[in-house]
Amino acid sequence: MALIGVDWGSSNLRAYRFGPDGAVVDRRESHRGAARLKRPEFAGVLAETLEDWIEADTLVILAGMVGARAGWHEAAYLPCPANPEDLAGAALRVEDAPVRCYIVPGLSARSANGVANVMRGEETQILGSHIADGTIVLPGTHSKWAQVEGGRITGFTTVMTGEMYALLRNQSLLGQLAEGDATDEGAFALGAQRALDDPAGALPLLFSARAEVLLGSLSPQSVASYLSGLLIGGEVAALRERARDGVMLICSAELAALYRVVLALAGVADVRVLDGADAVAQGLWRIGGLLK
Amino acid sequence: MALIGVDWGSSNLRAYRFGPDGAVVDRRESHRGAARLKRPEFAGVLAETLEDWIEADTLVILAGMVGARAGWHEAAYLPCPANPEDLAGAALRVEDAPVRCYIVPGLSARSANGVANVMRGEETQILGSHIADGTIVLPGTHSKWAQVEGGRITGFTTVMTGEMYALLRNQSLLGQLAEGDATDEGAFALGAQRALDDPAGALPLLFSARAEVLLGSLSPQSVASYLSGLLIGGEVAALRERARDGVMLICSAELAALYRVVLALAGVADVRVLDGADAVAQGLWRIGGLLK
Repeated sequence: MALIGVDWGSSNLRAYRFGPDGAVVDRRESHRGAARLKRPEFAGVLAETLEDWIEADTLVILAGMVGARAGWHEAAYLPCPANPEDLAGAALRVEDAPVRCYIVPGLSARSANGVANVMRGEETQILGSHIADGTIVLPGTHSKWAQVEGGRITGFTTVMTGEMYALLRNQSLLGQLAEGDATDEGAFALGAQRALDDPAGALPLLFSARAEVLLGSLSPQSVASYLSGLLIGGEVAALRERARDGVMLICSAELAALYRVVLALAGVADVRVLDGADAVAQGLWRIGGLLK
Repeated sequence: MALIGVDWGSSNLRAYRFGPDGAVVDRRESHRGAARLKRPEFAGVLAETLEDWIEADTLVILAGMVGARAGWHEAAYLPCPANPEDLAGAALRVEDAPVRCYIVPGLSARSANGVANVMRGEETQILGSHIADGTIVLPGTHSKWAQVEGGRITGFTTVMTGEMYALLRNQSLLGQLAEGDATDEGAFALGAQRALDDPAGALPLLFSARAEVLLGSLSPQSVASYLSGLLIGGEVAALRERARDGVMLICSAELAALYRVVLALAGVADVRVLDGADAVAQGLWRIGGLLK
């Protein structure tokens, strides 16, 4: 049986064609993300994208926002703890697809004091890491810190680091004093160190990205890096207890470089990195193998 | 000598005419805030606003964003610690005003580990409280938590609670699931309690304002109150050590009601409230008295 995996997020679609051993033998990408499509358009976009990849016995596994309420079909959040078998078992069969097709559900979690969290797409990346026990961090718009125990995803927390950065950089009074988005490693490290040092975390420090400029102690060109340092520092400061025994980062090389700096400042020595695209492909292959 | 005080912020101008004993005998208000005026317009706006109040021996004291770099004339930030005499001594004489006129400078502060803060306008409100020793909280777009010792403002911290609320409510992915801004006291208290209970503060909780709705455990109509609770709770959680011996709030009655709820949840028993307009008038009178 031929397997195809599709990471279908809000903005983009990334398709992976697997060989019989799970190696990615071909990949295709388009900007026809789930947030840009109306429900009746999904089947056609999938057929156009996969085109000649589709054979009689092909199985297609979809993950990401394609399964959200506003996506193609809603694959309801599965509560943690969940292992690959649970996710495969709850995968939603898509009846109106051009081929045999399933959508991987997202996951939900509640902390000990009842705080809700959801993820959609990251669960597939986490499984793609093949980590049996440990903390997995998926930096991004909404960074996820997930615990994996005995091969099960047991819980996770979200920090809105990427979205907060965009809001503060582009829409806030802090951002008005910022010029450009050039990288200033010193300003980044200063922001990160301050957030790690402050027992109250990053919230009471954010305004300093404005005050330092007004007092002449930070250049407008360095505000973006300083703010990024404060926010990533605040994220790591909030959750560093979970990183004590090391973490695996799943993200792009650019984000991994930033998080490595902050994790090192926080004293986290054991940091491994897995590319986000490799992780999702491996996760799709793994879940697909359970659905064959 | 007749004294007039003007609280000239970014969006509004509020003028207070004082009787010989410091009582406000008349007040005027307009929307001709400092952020809306070009430099050559300030003198005319002041003359039009004060008009028949001006007598031969009138002294006018201005405070707020009128003294910012982009205001009428820049009254440079005075470093903490500062007492009323320091602020009066550093007041900037305005040469092109229609009457004898000074601008009160803003204040700057650096925390023990070097983090910068600035305020402009709040220093006058703090002096208007006539507090000699204690913690003064000025909730708002950029909430200020100031220490006063022996009549001097010795330091302060800023938390961007109001601006964060507006950004998250109106521009973020959380806000997309929110409907309206009605008050839900239960949702507000839940958010505040969660932020107070979480040793990591509010940052890792913000996303729950989205997740709770997606899981059906929070109604879209309650998101605004829950988010407000998380943010004010996060502010108080970050700085509650400073509130141990009580606080004075300087703000509107509406904001005071919200902060009272959160401070009570945080175990702060001694909370006094001073109206923001009364505070600025008293502060202008106090500084003006030193300039006569």
